[in-house]
Amino acid sequence: MSSDANTIVKSYGEELRRLRELIARMGGLAERQVADASYVLARRDATAAAEVAARDAPIDALEREVEAYCVRLLALRSPMASDLRLIIAAMKISQDLERIGDYARNVAKRVIVVSENMGLSAGVASFEALAQMVQRNLKDAIDALVNEDAAACERVWRNDAPVDDVYDGIFRQLLTYMMEDPRNITSATHLLFVAKNFERIGDHATNIAETVYFSITGTTLPEDRPRGDVSGTAA
Amino acid sequence: MSSDANTIVKSYGEELRRLRELIARMGGLAERQVADASYVLARRDATAAAEVAARDAPIDALEREVEAYCVRLLALRSPMASDLRLIIAAMKISQDLERIGDYARNVAKRVIVVSENMGLSAGVASFEALAQMVQRNLKDAIDALVNEDAAACERVWRNDAPVDDVYDGIFRQLLTYMMEDPRNITSATHLLFVAKNFERIGDHATNIAETVYFSITGTTLPEDRPRGDVSGTAA
Repeated sequence: MSSDANTIVKSYGEELRRLRELIARMGGLAERQVADASYVLARRDATAAAEVAARDAPIDALEREVEAYCVRLLALRSPMASDLRLIIAAMKISQDLERIGDYARNVAKRVIVVSENMGLSAGVASFEALAQMVQRNLKDAIDALVNEDAAACERVWRNDAPVDDVYDGIFRQLLTYMMEDPRNITSATHLLFVAKNFERIGDHATNIAETVYFSITGTTLPEDRPRGDVSGTAA
Repeated sequence: MSSDANTIVKSYGEELRRLRELIARMGGLAERQVADASYVLARRDATAAAEVAARDAPIDALEREVEAYCVRLLALRSPMASDLRLIIAAMKISQDLERIGDYARNVAKRVIVVSENMGLSAGVASFEALAQMVQRNLKDAIDALVNEDAAACERVWRNDAPVDDVYDGIFRQLLTYMMEDPRNITSATHLLFVAKNFERIGDHATNIAETVYFSITGTTLPEDRPRGDVSGTAA
Protein backbone atom coordinates (compact mmCIF):
# COMPACT_ATOMS: atom_id res chain seq x y z
CA MET A 1 0.00 0.00 0.00
CA SER A 2 1.44 3.35 -1.00
CA SER A 3 1.70 6.21 1.49
CA ASP A 4 -0.87 8.06 -0.63
CA ALA A 5 -3.34 5.28 -0.07
CA ASN A 6 -2.49 5.42 3.63
CA THR A 7 -3.43 9.06 3.64
CA ILE A 8 -6.69 8.37 1.91
CA VAL A 9 -7.85 5.68 4.30
CA LYS A 10 -6.87 7.76 7.32
CA SER A 11 -9.94 8.16 9.54
CA TYR A 12 -11.63 11.47 10.12
CA GLY A 13 -10.67 11.28 13.82
CA GLU A 14 -7.02 10.83 12.87
CA GLU A 15 -7.24 13.81 10.52
CA LEU A 16 -8.58 16.05 13.28
CA ARG A 17 -5.83 14.81 15.61
CA ARG A 18 -3.27 15.63 12.94
CA LEU A 19 -4.73 19.14 12.66
CA ARG A 20 -4.24 19.69 16.41
CA GLU A 21 -0.68 18.38 16.05
CA LEU A 22 0.04 20.84 13.23
CA ILE A 23 -1.15 23.74 15.39
CA ALA A 24 0.82 22.45 18.40
CA ARG A 25 3.95 22.21 16.26
CA MET A 26 3.41 25.72 14.92
CA GLY A 27 2.80 26.92 18.49
CA GLY A 28 6.07 25.33 19.59
CA LEU A 29 7.97 27.14 16.84
CA ALA A 30 6.33 30.46 17.77
CA GLU A 31 7.15 29.93 21.48
CA ARG A 32 10.77 29.25 20.56
CA GLN A 33 10.97 32.41 18.41
CA VAL A 34 9.59 34.50 21.29
CA ALA A 35 12.00 32.89 23.78
CA ASP A 36 14.96 33.42 21.44
CA ALA A 37 13.96 37.02 20.74
CA SER A 38 13.89 37.64 24.48
CA TYR A 39 17.25 35.91 24.93
CA VAL A 40 19.06 37.96 22.26
CA LEU A 41 17.46 41.13 23.63
CA ALA A 42 18.67 40.50 27.18
CA ARG A 43 22.21 39.82 25.90
CA ARG A 44 22.20 42.49 23.15
CA ASP A 45 23.59 39.71 20.92
CA ALA A 46 23.47 41.04 17.34
CA THR A 47 24.87 37.83 15.78
CA ALA A 48 22.28 35.57 17.40
CA ALA A 49 19.60 38.20 16.70
CA ALA A 50 20.38 38.02 12.98
CA GLU A 51 19.82 34.25 13.12
CA VAL A 52 16.45 34.67 14.87
CA ALA A 53 15.43 37.39 12.39
CA ALA A 54 16.18 35.06 9.47
CA ARG A 55 14.17 32.15 10.89
CA ASP A 56 10.44 32.67 10.31
CA ALA A 57 10.01 30.69 7.09
CA PRO A 58 9.02 27.44 8.89
CA ILE A 59 6.16 29.19 10.74
CA ASP A 60 4.91 30.80 7.52
CA ALA A 61 5.09 27.44 5.75
CA LEU A 62 3.07 25.78 8.53
CA GLU A 63 0.42 28.51 8.31
CA ARG A 64 -0.08 27.67 4.63
CA GLU A 65 -0.07 23.94 5.45
CA VAL A 66 -2.73 24.40 8.15
CA GLU A 67 -4.95 26.41 5.81
CA ALA A 68 -4.61 23.91 2.97
CA TYR A 69 -5.33 21.03 5.36
CA CYS A 70 -8.41 22.82 6.73
CA VAL A 71 -9.72 23.55 3.23
CA ARG A 72 -9.26 19.87 2.38
CA LEU A 73 -11.14 18.74 5.51
CA LEU A 74 -13.95 21.21 4.82
CA ALA A 75 -14.28 20.03 1.22
CA LEU A 76 -14.01 16.29 1.86
CA ARG A 77 -15.63 15.82 5.28
CA SER A 78 -18.38 18.47 5.46
CA PRO A 79 -17.71 18.77 9.20
CA MET A 80 -20.45 19.81 11.63
CA ALA A 81 -20.69 21.30 15.13
CA SER A 82 -17.56 20.91 17.25
CA ASP A 83 -15.46 19.49 14.37
CA LEU A 84 -16.33 22.51 12.24
CA ARG A 85 -15.49 24.82 15.15
CA LEU A 86 -12.12 23.11 15.58
CA ILE A 87 -11.23 23.53 11.90
CA ILE A 88 -12.19 27.21 11.91
CA ALA A 89 -10.30 27.70 15.17
CA ALA A 90 -7.20 26.09 13.62
CA MET A 91 -7.26 28.57 10.73
CA LYS A 92 -7.65 31.53 13.07
CA ILE A 93 -4.95 30.32 15.48
CA SER A 94 -2.48 29.74 12.65
CA GLN A 95 -2.96 33.40 11.65
CA ASP A 96 -2.28 34.51 15.24
CA LEU A 97 0.83 32.33 15.42
CA GLU A 98 2.12 33.68 12.13
CA ARG A 99 1.75 37.22 13.49
CA ILE A 100 3.51 36.22 16.71
CA GLY A 101 6.41 34.94 14.61
CA ASP A 102 6.51 38.27 12.76
CA TYR A 103 6.60 40.23 16.02
CA ALA A 104 9.40 38.05 17.40
CA ARG A 105 11.36 38.56 14.20
CA ASN A 106 10.87 42.32 14.44
CA VAL A 107 12.20 42.24 18.03
CA ALA A 108 15.31 40.43 16.79
CA LYS A 109 15.79 42.97 13.97
CA ARG A 110 15.64 45.85 16.41
CA VAL A 111 18.08 44.10 18.79
CA ILE A 112 20.63 44.24 15.97
CA VAL A 113 20.30 48.04 16.04
CA VAL A 114 20.24 48.61 19.79
CA SER A 115 23.09 46.16 20.47
CA GLU A 116 25.46 48.87 19.25
CA ASN A 117 24.44 51.04 22.19
CA MET A 118 25.81 48.79 24.94
CA GLY A 119 25.15 51.36 27.63
CA LEU A 120 21.42 51.12 27.16
CA SER A 121 20.55 48.51 29.75
CA ALA A 122 17.47 50.35 30.98
CA GLY A 123 14.55 48.12 31.77
CA VAL A 124 16.27 44.82 30.98
CA ALA A 125 14.64 43.14 33.98
CA SER A 126 11.20 44.43 32.98
CA PHE A 127 11.69 43.22 29.41
CA GLU A 128 12.54 39.74 30.66
CA ALA A 129 9.45 39.78 32.88
CA LEU A 130 7.29 40.93 29.96
CA ALA A 131 8.69 38.30 27.61
CA GLN A 132 8.26 35.53 30.19
CA MET A 133 4.63 36.49 30.83
CA VAL A 134 3.67 36.42 27.16
CA GLN A 135 5.61 33.19 26.58
CA ARG A 136 3.71 31.51 29.41
CA ASN A 137 0.37 32.77 28.10
CA LEU A 138 1.21 31.55 24.62
CA LYS A 139 2.26 28.12 25.88
CA ASP A 140 -0.85 27.82 28.09
CA ALA A 141 -3.14 28.81 25.19
CA ILE A 142 -1.65 26.16 22.90
CA ASP A 143 -1.73 23.54 25.70
CA ALA A 144 -5.40 24.42 26.23
CA LEU A 145 -6.07 23.51 22.59
CA VAL A 146 -4.19 20.21 22.85
CA ASN A 147 -5.85 19.29 26.18
CA GLU A 148 -9.28 20.76 25.29
CA ASP A 149 -9.14 22.71 28.57
CA ALA A 150 -11.65 25.60 28.63
CA ALA A 151 -10.72 26.61 32.20
CA ALA A 152 -7.11 27.13 31.09
CA CYS A 153 -8.36 29.45 28.34
CA GLU A 154 -10.09 31.61 30.94
CA ARG A 155 -6.88 31.80 32.97
CA VAL A 156 -4.85 32.97 29.95
CA TRP A 157 -7.55 35.49 29.14
CA ARG A 158 -7.35 36.96 32.66
CA ASN A 159 -3.54 36.98 32.61
CA ASP A 160 -3.31 39.66 29.92
CA ALA A 161 -3.96 42.59 32.27
CA PRO A 162 -0.63 42.20 34.16
CA VAL A 163 1.17 42.04 30.78
CA ASP A 164 -0.26 45.43 29.90
CA ASP A 165 0.81 46.81 33.29
CA VAL A 166 4.43 45.76 32.78
CA TYR A 167 4.34 47.19 29.25
CA ASP A 168 3.11 50.56 30.56
CA GLY A 169 5.94 50.61 33.11
CA ILE A 170 8.55 50.03 30.39
CA PHE A 171 6.94 52.70 28.20
CA ARG A 172 7.26 55.34 30.96
CA GLN A 173 10.79 54.24 31.86
CA LEU A 174 11.97 54.58 28.26
CA LEU A 175 10.40 58.04 27.93
CA THR A 176 12.29 59.17 31.05
CA TYR A 177 15.47 57.66 29.67
CA MET A 178 15.11 59.62 26.42
CA MET A 179 14.47 62.86 28.27
CA GLU A 180 17.56 62.40 30.44
CA ASP A 181 19.90 62.09 27.47
CA PRO A 182 18.98 62.74 23.82
CA ARG A 183 21.71 60.30 22.73
CA ASN A 184 19.41 57.52 24.00
CA ILE A 185 16.54 58.53 21.73
CA THR A 186 17.19 56.24 18.75
CA SER A 187 17.84 53.12 20.79
CA ALA A 188 15.05 53.84 23.25
CA THR A 189 12.62 54.32 20.36
CA HIS A 190 13.48 50.87 19.02
CA LEU A 191 13.02 49.47 22.54
CA LEU A 192 9.57 51.11 22.70
CA PHE A 193 8.62 49.12 19.62
CA VAL A 194 10.24 45.99 21.09
CA ALA A 195 8.05 46.38 24.19
CA LYS A 196 5.01 46.97 21.99
CA ASN A 197 5.83 43.82 20.03
CA PHE A 198 5.86 41.71 23.20
CA GLU A 199 2.60 43.32 24.31
CA ARG A 200 1.05 42.46 20.91
CA ILE A 201 2.33 38.89 21.19
CA GLY A 202 0.44 38.77 24.49
CA ASP A 203 -2.72 40.05 22.76
CA HIS A 204 -2.43 37.30 20.16
CA ALA A 205 -1.99 34.69 22.93
CA THR A 206 -5.23 36.04 24.41
CA ASN A 207 -6.92 35.81 20.98
CA ILE A 208 -5.82 32.17 20.77
CA ALA A 209 -7.26 31.45 24.23
CA GLU A 210 -10.57 33.04 23.18
CA THR A 211 -10.64 31.01 19.96
CA VAL A 212 -9.82 27.75 21.77
CA TYR A 213 -12.51 28.49 24.38
CA PHE A 214 -15.13 28.96 21.65
CA SER A 215 -13.98 25.87 19.82
CA ILE A 216 -14.39 23.75 22.98
CA THR A 217 -17.55 25.25 24.47
CA GLY A 218 -19.41 26.81 21.52
CA THR A 219 -19.80 29.97 23.63
CA THR A 220 -17.68 33.11 23.77
CA LEU A 221 -15.79 34.67 26.67
CA PRO A 222 -17.16 38.10 27.67
CA GLU A 223 -16.39 40.77 25.09
CA ASP A 224 -14.60 43.15 27.40
CA ARG A 225 -11.60 41.37 28.73
CA PRO A 226 -9.63 42.95 31.58
CA ARG A 227 -7.25 45.47 30.05
CA GLY A 228 -4.39 47.26 31.72
CA ASP A 229 -2.83 49.02 28.71
CA VAL A 230 -3.34 52.76 29.14
CA SER A 231 -0.22 53.86 27.26
CA GLY A 232 -2.40 54.93 24.33
CA THR A 233 -3.61 57.75 26.55
CA ALA A 234 -0.57 58.25 28.80
CA ALA A 235 0.55 61.87 28.64
CA MET B 1 -44.61 33.75 4.75
CA SER B 2 -42.55 34.76 7.77
CA SER B 3 -39.20 36.46 7.35
CA ASP B 4 -37.65 33.31 8.83
CA ALA B 5 -39.10 31.29 6.02
CA ASN B 6 -37.78 33.89 3.58
CA THR B 7 -34.34 33.34 5.00
CA ILE B 8 -34.64 29.61 4.66
CA VAL B 9 -35.69 29.62 1.01
CA LYS B 10 -32.96 32.11 0.06
CA SER B 11 -30.83 30.57 -2.68
CA TYR B 12 -27.21 29.65 -2.21
CA GLY B 13 -26.21 32.28 -4.79
CA GLU B 14 -28.07 34.94 -2.82
CA GLU B 15 -26.34 33.82 0.37
CA LEU B 16 -22.90 34.19 -1.20
CA ARG B 17 -23.87 37.62 -2.52
CA ARG B 18 -25.01 38.60 0.98
CA LEU B 19 -21.64 37.45 2.33
CA ARG B 20 -19.84 39.78 -0.11
CA GLU B 21 -22.19 42.58 0.96
CA LEU B 22 -21.40 42.01 4.63
CA ILE B 23 -17.67 42.28 3.93
CA ALA B 24 -18.19 45.36 1.74
CA ARG B 25 -20.19 47.00 4.54
CA MET B 26 -17.53 46.13 7.10
CA GLY B 27 -14.89 47.47 4.68
CA GLY B 28 -16.83 50.71 4.34
CA LEU B 29 -16.92 51.14 8.13
CA ALA B 30 -13.18 50.43 8.39
CA GLU B 31 -12.43 52.94 5.59
CA ARG B 32 -14.48 55.56 7.41
CA GLN B 33 -12.66 54.92 10.71
CA VAL B 34 -9.29 55.32 8.97
CA ALA B 35 -10.43 58.51 7.21
CA ASP B 36 -11.80 59.96 10.45
CA ALA B 37 -8.66 59.04 12.39
CA SER B 38 -6.61 60.86 9.76
CA TYR B 39 -8.97 63.86 9.91
CA VAL B 40 -8.79 64.26 13.70
CA LEU B 41 -5.01 63.80 13.58
CA ALA B 42 -4.53 66.57 11.00
CA ARG B 43 -6.71 68.92 13.05
CA ARG B 44 -5.48 67.78 16.49
CA ASP B 45 -9.17 67.66 17.40
CA ALA B 46 -9.42 65.88 20.75
CA THR B 47 -13.23 66.07 20.94
CA ALA B 48 -13.78 64.46 17.55
CA ALA B 49 -10.96 62.00 18.33
CA ALA B 50 -12.82 60.81 21.43
CA GLU B 51 -15.87 60.09 19.23
CA VAL B 52 -13.78 58.09 16.74
CA ALA B 53 -12.10 56.19 19.59
CA ALA B 54 -15.50 55.22 21.00
CA ARG B 55 -16.84 53.94 17.67
CA ASP B 56 -15.48 50.48 16.89
CA ALA B 57 -18.35 48.36 18.21
CA PRO B 58 -20.14 48.13 14.81
CA ILE B 59 -17.02 46.71 13.13
CA ASP B 60 -16.52 44.17 15.91
CA ALA B 61 -20.20 43.17 15.69
CA LEU B 62 -19.90 42.68 11.91
CA GLU B 63 -16.82 40.49 12.40
CA ARG B 64 -18.86 38.18 14.62
CA GLU B 65 -21.76 38.29 12.14
CA VAL B 66 -19.47 37.36 9.23
CA GLU B 67 -17.98 34.44 11.15
CA ALA B 68 -21.39 33.15 12.25
CA TYR B 69 -22.71 33.47 8.69
CA CYS B 70 -19.69 31.62 7.28
CA VAL B 71 -20.04 28.81 9.82
CA ARG B 72 -23.71 28.50 8.85
CA LEU B 73 -22.86 28.35 5.13
CA LEU B 74 -20.14 25.76 5.75
CA ALA B 75 -22.49 23.61 7.82
CA LEU B 76 -25.57 23.87 5.59
CA ARG B 77 -24.13 24.11 2.07
CA SER B 78 -20.93 22.03 2.15
CA PRO B 79 -19.37 24.48 -0.34
CA MET B 80 -16.67 23.40 -2.78
CA ALA B 81 -13.92 25.03 -4.85
CA SER B 82 -14.37 28.77 -5.44
CA ASP B 83 -17.38 29.04 -3.07
CA LEU B 84 -15.35 27.48 -0.28
CA ARG B 85 -12.44 29.82 -1.05
CA LEU B 86 -14.80 32.81 -0.90
CA ILE B 87 -16.14 31.79 2.52
CA ILE B 88 -12.66 31.25 3.95
CA ALA B 89 -11.54 34.55 2.42
CA ALA B 90 -14.49 36.33 4.05
CA MET B 91 -13.48 35.05 7.49
CA LYS B 92 -9.86 36.11 7.00
CA ILE B 93 -10.76 39.54 5.61
CA SER B 94 -13.14 40.22 8.49
CA GLN B 95 -10.23 39.61 10.89
CA ASP B 96 -8.05 42.05 8.92
CA LEU B 97 -10.83 44.67 8.94
CA GLU B 98 -11.36 44.26 12.67
CA ARG B 99 -7.64 44.88 13.22
CA ILE B 100 -7.75 47.94 10.94
CA GLY B 101 -10.59 49.30 13.09
CA ASP B 102 -8.46 48.73 16.21
CA TYR B 103 -5.49 50.57 14.69
CA ALA B 104 -7.70 53.52 13.66
CA ARG B 105 -9.13 53.66 17.17
CA ASN B 106 -5.63 53.65 18.65
CA VAL B 107 -4.67 56.56 16.37
CA ALA B 108 -7.68 58.51 17.66
CA LYS B 109 -6.75 57.73 21.30
CA ARG B 110 -3.24 59.03 20.77
CA VAL B 111 -4.55 62.18 19.03
CA ILE B 112 -6.33 62.99 22.29
CA VAL B 113 -2.91 63.03 24.00
CA VAL B 114 -0.91 64.88 21.35
CA SER B 115 -3.62 67.50 20.76
CA GLU B 116 -2.46 69.14 23.99
CA ASN B 117 0.89 69.88 22.35
CA MET B 118 -0.37 72.24 19.66
CA GLY B 119 3.12 73.23 18.60
CA LEU B 120 3.88 69.73 17.35
CA SER B 121 2.90 70.06 13.72
CA ALA B 122 5.92 68.17 12.43
CA GLY B 123 5.19 65.86 9.57
CA VAL B 124 1.50 66.69 9.23
CA ALA B 125 1.71 66.63 5.43
CA SER B 126 3.48 63.25 5.49
CA PHE B 127 0.86 61.83 7.84
CA GLU B 128 -1.91 62.92 5.49
CA ALA B 129 -0.07 61.34 2.56
CA LEU B 130 0.43 58.12 4.53
CA ALA B 131 -3.22 57.97 5.60
CA GLN B 132 -4.45 58.64 2.07
CA MET B 133 -2.26 55.91 0.61
CA VAL B 134 -3.48 53.25 3.02
CA GLN B 135 -7.11 54.39 2.63
CA ARG B 136 -6.86 54.02 -1.13
CA ASN B 137 -5.26 50.58 -0.83
CA LEU B 138 -7.96 49.49 1.60
CA LYS B 139 -10.75 50.75 -0.67
CA ASP B 140 -9.18 49.14 -3.75
CA ALA B 141 -8.77 45.80 -1.94
CA ILE B 142 -12.43 45.74 -0.88
CA ASP B 143 -13.56 46.86 -4.36
CA ALA B 144 -11.48 44.01 -5.81
CA LEU B 145 -13.49 41.57 -3.71
CA VAL B 146 -16.82 43.06 -4.80
CA ASN B 147 -15.79 43.20 -8.48
CA GLU B 148 -13.83 39.91 -8.44
CA ASP B 149 -10.89 41.79 -9.95
CA ALA B 150 -7.61 39.89 -9.58
CA ALA B 151 -5.59 42.54 -11.46
CA ALA B 152 -6.69 45.16 -8.91
CA CYS B 153 -5.37 42.88 -6.12
CA GLU B 154 -1.95 42.84 -7.76
CA ARG B 155 -1.95 46.64 -7.96
CA VAL B 156 -2.76 46.99 -4.23
CA TRP B 157 -0.09 44.44 -3.43
CA ARG B 158 2.52 46.48 -5.36
CA ASN B 159 1.37 49.74 -3.79
CA ASP B 160 2.53 48.82 -0.29
CA ALA B 161 6.21 49.66 -0.90
CA PRO B 162 5.61 53.46 -1.22
CA VAL B 163 3.57 53.30 2.02
CA ASP B 164 6.60 51.89 3.80
CA ASP B 165 8.82 54.61 2.29
CA VAL B 166 6.60 57.41 3.62
CA TYR B 167 6.47 55.68 7.01
CA ASP B 168 10.27 55.52 7.16
CA GLY B 169 10.47 59.25 6.36
CA ILE B 170 8.10 60.10 9.21
CA PHE B 171 10.04 57.83 11.58
CA ARG B 172 13.31 59.68 10.87
CA GLN B 173 11.64 63.10 11.03
CA LEU B 174 10.16 62.37 14.45
CA LEU B 175 13.49 61.11 15.80
CA THR B 176 15.13 64.36 14.70
CA TYR B 177 12.32 66.32 16.28
CA MET B 178 12.85 64.56 19.62
CA MET B 179 16.60 65.17 19.53
CA GLU B 180 16.10 68.88 18.85
CA ASP B 181 13.94 69.42 21.92
CA PRO B 182 13.33 66.88 24.70
CA ARG B 183 9.95 68.51 25.42
CA ASN B 184 8.75 66.94 22.15
CA ILE B 185 9.60 63.41 23.27
CA THR B 186 6.25 62.32 24.71
CA SER B 187 4.14 63.65 21.83
CA ALA B 188 6.59 62.51 19.18
CA THR B 189 6.59 59.02 20.70
CA HIS B 190 2.81 58.84 20.37
CA LEU B 191 3.13 60.07 16.78
CA LEU B 192 5.67 57.28 16.09
CA PHE B 193 3.00 54.79 17.10
CA VAL B 194 0.40 56.68 15.06
CA ALA B 195 2.62 56.34 11.99
CA LYS B 196 3.18 52.66 12.77
CA ASN B 197 -0.58 52.16 13.06
CA PHE B 198 -1.15 53.59 9.58
CA GLU B 199 1.68 51.46 8.22
CA ARG B 200 0.07 48.36 9.80
CA ILE B 201 -3.31 49.34 8.31
CA GLY B 202 -1.52 49.33 4.95
CA ASP B 203 -0.15 45.83 5.68
CA HIS B 204 -3.65 44.57 6.43
CA ALA B 205 -4.94 46.12 3.18
CA THR B 206 -2.20 44.16 1.42
CA ASN B 207 -3.24 40.99 3.28
CA ILE B 208 -6.81 41.54 2.08
CA ALA B 209 -5.62 41.96 -1.52
CA GLU B 210 -3.65 38.70 -1.24
CA THR B 211 -6.66 36.88 0.22
CA VAL B 212 -9.01 38.22 -2.47
CA TYR B 213 -6.51 37.25 -5.17
CA PHE B 214 -6.39 33.67 -3.89
CA SER B 215 -10.15 33.52 -3.55
CA ILE B 216 -10.60 34.59 -7.20
CA THR B 217 -7.75 32.69 -8.86
CA GLY B 218 -7.01 29.75 -6.57
CA THR B 219 -3.32 30.69 -6.77
CA THR B 220 -1.20 32.85 -4.49
CA LEU B 221 0.73 36.03 -5.21
CA PRO B 222 4.53 35.59 -4.85
CA GLU B 223 5.60 35.21 -1.22
CA ASP B 224 8.03 38.08 -1.13
CA ARG B 225 6.10 41.20 -1.86
CA PRO B 226 8.00 44.45 -2.48
CA ARG B 227 8.84 45.95 0.91
CA GLY B 228 10.17 49.40 1.64
CA ASP B 229 10.03 49.37 5.46
CA VAL B 230 13.60 49.41 6.76
CA SER B 231 12.86 51.27 10.00
CA GLY B 232 13.30 48.03 11.94
CA THR B 233 16.97 48.27 11.12
CA ALA B 234 17.40 52.05 10.81
CA ALA B 235 20.13 53.23 13.16
